[in-house]
Amino acid sequence: MIYQTAILQFSKMLKNLLAILDKGAKSAEDRKFDVGVLLQSRLAPDQFNLIRQVQVLCDTAKVCAAALANKEIPSHPDTEQTLPELKQRIETVLSYLSTFSAADFANAQERRIARPRWEGKHMSGEEFLLQHALPNFYFHFTVAYEILRHNGVSIGKKDYLGELPYQK
Amino acid sequence: MIYQTAILQFSKMLKNLLAILDKGAKSAEDRKFDVGVLLQSRLAPDQFNLIRQVQVLCDTAKVCAAALANKEIPSHPDTEQTLPELKQRIETVLSYLSTFSAADFANAQERRIARPRWEGKHMSGEEFLLQHALPNFYFHFTVAYEILRHNGVSIGKKDYLGELPYQK
Repeated sequence: MIYQTAILQFSKMLKNLLAILDKGAKSAEDRKFDVGVLLQSRLAPDQFNLIRQVQVLCDTAKVCAAALANKEIPSHPDTEQTLPELKQRIETVLSYLSTFSAADFANAQERRIARPRWEGKHMSGEEFLLQHALPNFYFHFTVAYEILRHNGVSIGKKDYLGELPYQK
Repeated sequence: MIYQTAILQFSKMLKNLLAILDKGAKSAEDRKFDVGVLLQSRLAPDQFNLIRQVQVLCDTAKVCAAALANKEIPSHPDTEQTLPELKQRIETVLSYLSTFSAADFANAQERRIARPRWEGKHMSGEEFLLQHALPNFYFHFTVAYEILRHNGVSIGKKDYLGELPYQK
């Protein structure tokens, strides 16, 4: 289930995010303002703007996969300023996530996870996924979504969830 | 891991939400306005207000647990208007979640989940949890958090995540 969560579901959500950002661009074009206005928007003055929300979201997915599979974490310099650059950042993470297989997470649940800012402390892979990575990923995703929604972009729950695997 | 996610982690987040709502009440009191203003606030005119976000969040947790364990879903009439009533609603769900044990989810991953509005279609328990319940739960939680944050309540990522299980 770790592979399903940290790779397949996160990848699905990142694709949903690409589509949502495109709807933001279309809305800006229709309403005759620069999409950069949306990229620079935030929901509170002391909270990250849309660009930074997406960067953090990308890092959450990347770090989650790498830490649980005990691999090197690729570095991204957070230099994105435009929508194409931001979408490229998302594509880069999608491409990175696609290099993982279920076997990479064979020992992930019990793996000891440590992060630089944790000052030498650690938690298990399962704790890291459920209590840290998952809530953080959806937090930044939802804030990015809400920045657009708050600014009048016509998106809804279906854009957020994406296609659901209904069977007859 | 289903019990850890749908019961333990959701319960933890609901307790975080109780604390966040209390911070909202304190902020309203300090700034001399009725907390009802926050409860009626929303981030977009055609989106749910804070009360409704919390109600849907509560239902998402309740339905997730009941459906995955194949139990009857208790009904709640969505009549909450005040902060004490809203907190009571959350307490009711916390109490309901506490009746579950890990054994209740022994067959949850492969269980066929169907919901009234799905028009006879279904998905597996794992798909339901990862692609429906989890993203929905964190969506409504984050929107509730952001409604307060947008209205100047001083809360941060630690209030959202709660205590993390760091070990030395």
